[in-house]
Amino acid sequence: MNIASLAWLFLDPKLLSELTLTPQGSTKKNIIFLVTDGMGPTSLSLTRSFRQYRDKLAIDDILTLDKHLIGQSRTRSSNSLVTDSAAGATAFSCALKSYNNAVGVTPQRQPCGTLLEAMKYEGYHTGLVVTTRITDATPAAFSSHVTYRFYEDLIAQHQLGEYPLGRVVDLMIGGGRTHFYPPGETPYGNGGLRKDGRNLIEEAQENGWSYVGNRSSFDNLELGNNVQLPLLALLADNDIPFDLDRDDAIYPSLEEEAITAMKALSKATEDSDKGFFLLIEGSRIDHAGHNNDPAAQVREVLAFDKAFKAVLDFADSTDVETVIISTSDHETGGLAAARQLTPSYPDYLWRPEALLAAKHSGEYLNNKIASFEGEDLESFIKHEIFEKDLGITDYTPQEVESIMDHSKASHYLLNDIVSRRSQTGWSTHGHSAVDVNIYAYSNKKSTMHLLREKLSGNHENIEIGQFMKDFVNVDLTHMTKLIKGTQVKPSDVDEMTVSQQQELLDNYHGGLVNVY
Amino acid sequence: MNIASLAWLFLDPKLLSELTLTPQGSTKKNIIFLVTDGMGPTSLSLTRSFRQYRDKLAIDDILTLDKHLIGQSRTRSSNSLVTDSAAGATAFSCALKSYNNAVGVTPQRQPCGTLLEAMKYEGYHTGLVVTTRITDATPAAFSSHVTYRFYEDLIAQHQLGEYPLGRVVDLMIGGGRTHFYPPGETPYGNGGLRKDGRNLIEEAQENGWSYVGNRSSFDNLELGNNVQLPLLALLADNDIPFDLDRDDAIYPSLEEEAITAMKALSKATEDSDKGFFLLIEGSRIDHAGHNNDPAAQVREVLAFDKAFKAVLDFADSTDVETVIISTSDHETGGLAAARQLTPSYPDYLWRPEALLAAKHSGEYLNNKIASFEGEDLESFIKHEIFEKDLGITDYTPQEVESIMDHSKASHYLLNDIVSRRSQTGWSTHGHSAVDVNIYAYSNKKSTMHLLREKLSGNHENIEIGQFMKDFVNVDLTHMTKLIKGTQVKPSDVDEMTVSQQQELLDNYHGGLVNVY
Repeated sequence: MNIASLAWLFLDPKLLSELTLTPQGSTKKNIIFLVTDGMGPTSLSLTRSFRQYRDKLAIDDILTLDKHLIGQSRTRSSNSLVTDSAAGATAFSCALKSYNNAVGVTPQRQPCGTLLEAMKYEGYHTGLVVTTRITDATPAAFSSHVTYRFYEDLIAQHQLGEYPLGRVVDLMIGGGRTHFYPPGETPYGNGGLRKDGRNLIEEAQENGWSYVGNRSSFDNLELGNNVQLPLLALLADNDIPFDLDRDDAIYPSLEEEAITAMKALSKATEDSDKGFFLLIEGSRIDHAGHNNDPAAQVREVLAFDKAFKAVLDFADSTDVETVIISTSDHETGGLAAARQLTPSYPDYLWRPEALLAAKHSGEYLNNKIASFEGEDLESFIKHEIFEKDLGITDYTPQEVESIMDHSKASHYLLNDIVSRRSQTGWSTHGHSAVDVNIYAYSNKKSTMHLLREKLSGNHENIEIGQFMKDFVNVDLTHMTKLIKGTQVKPSDVDEMTVSQQQELLDNYHGGLVNVY
Repeated sequence: MNIASLAWLFLDPKLLSELTLTPQGSTKKNIIFLVTDGMGPTSLSLTRSFRQYRDKLAIDDILTLDKHLIGQSRTRSSNSLVTDSAAGATAFSCALKSYNNAVGVTPQRQPCGTLLEAMKYEGYHTGLVVTTRITDATPAAFSSHVTYRFYEDLIAQHQLGEYPLGRVVDLMIGGGRTHFYPPGETPYGNGGLRKDGRNLIEEAQENGWSYVGNRSSFDNLELGNNVQLPLLALLADNDIPFDLDRDDAIYPSLEEEAITAMKALSKATEDSDKGFFLLIEGSRIDHAGHNNDPAAQVREVLAFDKAFKAVLDFADSTDVETVIISTSDHETGGLAAARQLTPSYPDYLWRPEALLAAKHSGEYLNNKIASFEGEDLESFIKHEIFEKDLGITDYTPQEVESIMDHSKASHYLLNDIVSRRSQTGWSTHGHSAVDVNIYAYSNKKSTMHLLREKLSGNHENIEIGQFMKDFVNVDLTHMTKLIKGTQVKPSDVDEMTVSQQQELLDNYHGGLVNVY
């Protein structure tokens, strides 16, 4: 090897990456779409400052997400100024506005073709990675069609291919095993909830799915190097615990799940001229919001930020043109990074130290208190919960009493106690209407330009679905025709439920003009 | 005139504007910097949906601001994660982080050269337009140097040129007359507050300033066509009323003030190779936040949005290269567009109709109630305040009683009553730490590219100051040397006040690394 052939080693790294990535003429594409469920603008500010405080970082040491902010998304649904996750996800998956509770269906309650389905139809591989139930609204809206989000037994059937298109999902990693098997003792646990008595885990394996149900089987996947598709990985009956509570020996991190999925899909499409579609959801940022738990939330956002970094690293390591878009469906909790505690005019501050002192979520501590079997509950709450788990020594008699009085359902109370000490405000246990951030990246320069052109500034959420659809040039309308006969509600449900009929707009709140 | 010479009339308007604007080789520049004091992300979502609801617009009929979103700004100050407006404005004006309450001074309490001063020094014209006191923190941080923001008598002196640089401001339009004249009956009113007995309005006129103190004199300015600089326009003793309460016969709108300033500065710099620097502040978005008044806030944001539109129109009408940046110093109130009213799990919605029903701000109605001299206060509160002014008919006996009990200070209560009906949440009467939006525009394509390159994504607030300084290539360090001898506190103040000494960070909250 002569000196000249080594010259490339001294090229500018940026230039080098442009030279080596995405061979000219290749049309192979990946879309990795990330959803930070319930993460509004305040979550970012709170988490960033928490991390700077915890790790003694400079003020310009920001989150990976921060470095890729390109715009904001408006989030309202067809029937309310405040969306739920189902309508929010359907805006991304079908690129249309639908009603709260709608999973992959139109306002007229008809199934709408999704991006995932259309890409599968065109020969792409597909995957879903979440930390809540895989049958929950966000993943469901890409891979099933039901008129009411809580028809999760039916959602599970669709996800395994029991609907007109057959199987469209190649990989699922998350929680939510409970909707895949029946009640009673089974090899898969005893927390099954399926009313029809079916065991979809067994049926899936018979139909060729490989199944992963615990950490050791997950480890056997070797971070994606040893995956046989289709893969059904259900790592918890319900949710995977908050990252703050997560026992790494039992549950993998979102980052590990994401890496496993990207590697597996990447290998599976190695010899194809089509890449993959992968949804990755930081599902439980939303749950921390619903619980008004700031200590759990900042750790959820940090866990997501790590996964996001892994996704960027993947894009930079592949020569397949890859688009990464990360956004939220809505904000949860009306979170504010400041809270007035008394009628006196407040000092301008909030206290990250109170979040750092909390070693567990309110949800975890609530379970811990509920399962306490000792004699002295008061002492347990004072010394174990307040002092050891929350790092709080200035608890009041009223606070101790309130937890004792609600020892079976104390997480709202515990979270309020932490929120007050951190001076973190919340306005609701539900969702709010603030615009959410859009983050984006591509390993191909011209695609990055396209992302900036189309998604910088302020956009309706459906424009994000539209962008992805256009990027891979797929036809959702055609898919809608193909899935016309889909069963969109359980056979024993005759009428619309109250929730389905709910009309949240009392008056005219703006026409539903499609921006395209 | 032959047909060919008319051909330009048929050119694409965009192309035409590129051809006609900014003659090649010209280095003349304007900076118009707009501050939406206290406007966080939720204010935008709330106002946009309110406007769509009020005017029966489609969901893609968005604010003018929305169309120019380019990034977000982090807002913390040198001594707190939650800034005040003084430190926030000093980050823009001196491009450095300082402590809460610092007006144009460093954390070491030394005066720092500002963008406005540096541009004046280089031959630009300068102006300040606000709707609160002209001596309030935001305009003050560009045009004065004091260690504590409430030294407003001294701020007024600096603004009129009583400090080492002499006069640097060519035009001031706003409220805050009270710090320019002494108590007692004067030709300028009887609300003066100056402790030193001086009448700065008279002194200013003796020194060549033209003075405007009411609507008819303002109208004589002919929207800037008939202005003699320097101009001191003080249109209220304190604040100009909220736009929701503003009597157009008495007070001009922010849009009129902005147009007047742009026209006057534009004419004054007509024959110069330097343009102007103009600060325009939507000052009272912040006050609506402090008061937790959602009905006043959405109207303040709409009034600002109109002024912003006028600024864009100005830029598109001039051939001087003009940079427009609009951002907030911080969020106020911990505003959330959703609020849970009962322990029951909330519906996902908020109600713009309740904001539309409110015909006045809580501040206005509080004054109305306090000055009621009739016999039947209860009936007045029920029929005049609740029903007529707020459009509320479902008021409770407790609500009526609470207003009667606090008839001298009821605006917080009134605003809470409206907030509950609109399901709008607030976490504080102070500020919060959420990132705020950055909006930008230039009439020159390459400058728009530069704005996107430097200010898209997530940035520290000081980077905005830095951008403006670099854009006009001025030397703030040199200005700092020139203003070294500035009197930064009143002569009768010996020690730092408690507020000055306040250290809002209990522990390490990130080093103050300048990002440049």
